[in-house]
Amino acid sequence: MTKPIWIKHITQLATLASEEKGPRSKEAMSELGIIEDGSLWLENGVIQAVGTTKELEKQYEARAEEADIVDATGHLVTPGLVDPHTHVVYGGSREREFEMRLEGATYMDIMNAGGGIHATTRMTREASEEELIEQTTRRLDSFLQHGVTTVEGKSGYGMNLETELKQLRVMKKLQESHPIDLVPTFMGAHAVPPDFKGREDEFVDHLIEDMLPIVAEEKLAEFNDVFCEKGVFTPEQSERILEAGKQYGLIPKIHADEIEPYGGAELAAKVGAISAEHLLKASDEGIQAMAKSGTIACLLPATALYLREQAAAGRKMIDEGVAVAISTDANPGSSPTTSMPLVMNLACISMRLTPAESLTAATYNAACAINRQDLVGSFEVGKQADIVLWNVKSYQELQYLFGVNHVKSVWKKGVQVV
Amino acid sequence: MTKPIWIKHITQLATLASEEKGPRSKEAMSELGIIEDGSLWLENGVIQAVGTTKELEKQYEARAEEADIVDATGHLVTPGLVDPHTHVVYGGSREREFEMRLEGATYMDIMNAGGGIHATTRMTREASEEELIEQTTRRLDSFLQHGVTTVEGKSGYGMNLETELKQLRVMKKLQESHPIDLVPTFMGAHAVPPDFKGREDEFVDHLIEDMLPIVAEEKLAEFNDVFCEKGVFTPEQSERILEAGKQYGLIPKIHADEIEPYGGAELAAKVGAISAEHLLKASDEGIQAMAKSGTIACLLPATALYLREQAAAGRKMIDEGVAVAISTDANPGSSPTTSMPLVMNLACISMRLTPAESLTAATYNAACAINRQDLVGSFEVGKQADIVLWNVKSYQELQYLFGVNHVKSVWKKGVQVV
Ligand SMILES: [Zn+2]
Ligand SMILES: [Zn+2]
Repeated sequence: MTKPIWIKHITQLATLASEEKGPRSKEAMSELGIIEDGSLWLENGVIQAVGTTKELEKQYEARAEEADIVDATGHLVTPGLVDPHTHVVYGGSREREFEMRLEGATYMDIMNAGGGIHATTRMTREASEEELIEQTTRRLDSFLQHGVTTVEGKSGYGMNLETELKQLRVMKKLQESHPIDLVPTFMGAHAVPPDFKGREDEFVDHLIEDMLPIVAEEKLAEFNDVFCEKGVFTPEQSERILEAGKQYGLIPKIHADEIEPYGGAELAAKVGAISAEHLLKASDEGIQAMAKSGTIACLLPATALYLREQAAAGRKMIDEGVAVAISTDANPGSSPTTSMPLVMNLACISMRLTPAESLTAATYNAACAINRQDLVGSFEVGKQADIVLWNVKSYQELQYLFGVNHVKSVWKKGVQVV
Repeated sequence: MTKPIWIKHITQLATLASEEKGPRSKEAMSELGIIEDGSLWLENGVIQAVGTTKELEKQYEARAEEADIVDATGHLVTPGLVDPHTHVVYGGSREREFEMRLEGATYMDIMNAGGGIHATTRMTREASEEELIEQTTRRLDSFLQHGVTTVEGKSGYGMNLETELKQLRVMKKLQESHPIDLVPTFMGAHAVPPDFKGREDEFVDHLIEDMLPIVAEEKLAEFNDVFCEKGVFTPEQSERILEAGKQYGLIPKIHADEIEPYGGAELAAKVGAISAEHLLKASDEGIQAMAKSGTIACLLPATALYLREQAAAGRKMIDEGVAVAISTDANPGSSPTTSMPLVMNLACISMRLTPAESLTAATYNAACAINRQDLVGSFEVGKQADIVLWNVKSYQELQYLFGVNHVKSVWKKGVQVV
């Protein structure tokens, strides 16, 4: 039993609380449940009370002396950010490739120098579990510093059973050792391994027959993700993989329509995926299908920036009724960042989300995208005490003063970690 | 006399030192003067020695005991960053306007709600010197946290003599009270004041006859800047203002070709401006003229991002022989940020500078753009001990792991301030 903590006189407390449950779309994305001069009472790792400071003064009159007091005058407080799409577990680092490309190297130059995704695959295969844990811990520490308290992580740099399992086991161990909650996704179908080139269907068979059963048996993942893109996996192959995963209780996700319209959004709706990712080139029909099926659009504006692509049509998706979440896509090739605050800024700047929608996309909707909405993503009695206190006074300022990490303090399950 | 500091075993020490003096262009922008296992000896606020740890061990054998030792194993160390273009002194904040625009408000809605540059002018006029000092101090603190140790600041939110002088006097006071070196620029010609609309030439007369002499007499500025843009000040008006400033010893700078090609780059070369700013739409002729005249291109990729504009052609300018510097453009309307690290990342991502060029643009060339290259911007014996120790091991990693403030420690004139 730890001492209770009372965060009081919060200038702007964004609770994200709502009567309605499930992913928020349209106007619901703008409702932040703001309380002025707000208070939170944390005890035993969970939120025990949310309200105005006046209300909590009354409610806890008899116990006020017991608590550690945090005066949050002048500060915004929000739920801990949730990053619902990362590739955070990987070996090595590719900064030299980044430099080569800017020095004028071609794609082939990079490949000949052993670069690209296959470089990460090689380095991830070579890394021991301990090395992966050490590297990933540093990245998770950086996430915490940026106010992120829950992170989804995908396998997918193995391209063979052994390394896929290694990535997932590393996440399982980190879930024990690191304050951040790690939510695991199996993504054996991240790319076609070189030795299966031209025999993609055989790889799909292999994945379904040899990989999925073990992942399920060892309970190493909750979600099953596929890179559905021209030249990678077709919608048909993707559907087979996702339907097979469903048999094992793995919830589908899809990397969809990143490079060209390819029916990925439509497929996400069809198979009942919890979310579809990227969607830079999603068709109008795909967007409408997602709105209808309640599939969350998980948008990755930092990746678009890094690749110099036009960001996804976030504004349009919300207007059409799609629930939008946002994420760093943290990975060594197309988005080597851990900054969800920057991603929130980019959601406003590049995708024209409002400051309120951007915060919903990074908290409650992001929690929905990884099936954690009953635990995190909003302040409601009984939920985990995952909290960020910001060096700004409002959510508007948080988005407006861009490019700066405004995090001041972070609590994870009621314990201050930053 | 303070104790000397010996920063040793620096994994990668980027000295930016060179035999050649003056702004660097072409290949010279890639030469970072890297020393592996490097050392710096600081004393009395200046760099006393730069070299390998072995060299300094020999040089300071007799005095090694005297110094405070900083072990920089695993770290990159660079000169303090220089931000050569900001509007850091202003009253108020415009986050609500940012939100309104994203909620669909039109330009006219914003104006009717009292927004835009005239809102900042009003709030800057209303603010007392003390209020401006307090607000600006907070922004300068944030600059320091981001590794910036020298900041240029412009007046220009006064649009009348009284407030222009107030902004400049605030900078003079902050130069005394804040660790950051503030370099002042007079920018009375930032916009046409509403009461001079249609009588722009009269305003130019007023500025030349009534403002410049006082600014010069009180030694409140070193540079004289003009917003040369269609609908603001013509090249002819801009030339008059800049030539008049030269009579008072004020060095010309020009906000040039931001919105459309307007001959700003050409004018910068013609009047011998030390730098031209923005240049998103600079003509090929203008770029060539700048290369010939040695005018520095001061590029502002965070502003381009925030305004959703294509960034300036930084890659092309360097290839054509223009010396490039980069800057936040920190201001409440088009770039409310203090993050030079993000600006360096964007120089790579959006303008295709290499990681090395980006670092030169943010240090040595930035110092040249504000005539401080003999004091800061590189590590050479006798220069100010303005130093950043980064949480990455190389300048490549600094640019590659984007969107994160990797600053670990900062020394200003030999004193640790972060
Ligand atoms: Zn991904
Ligand atoms: Zn400017």
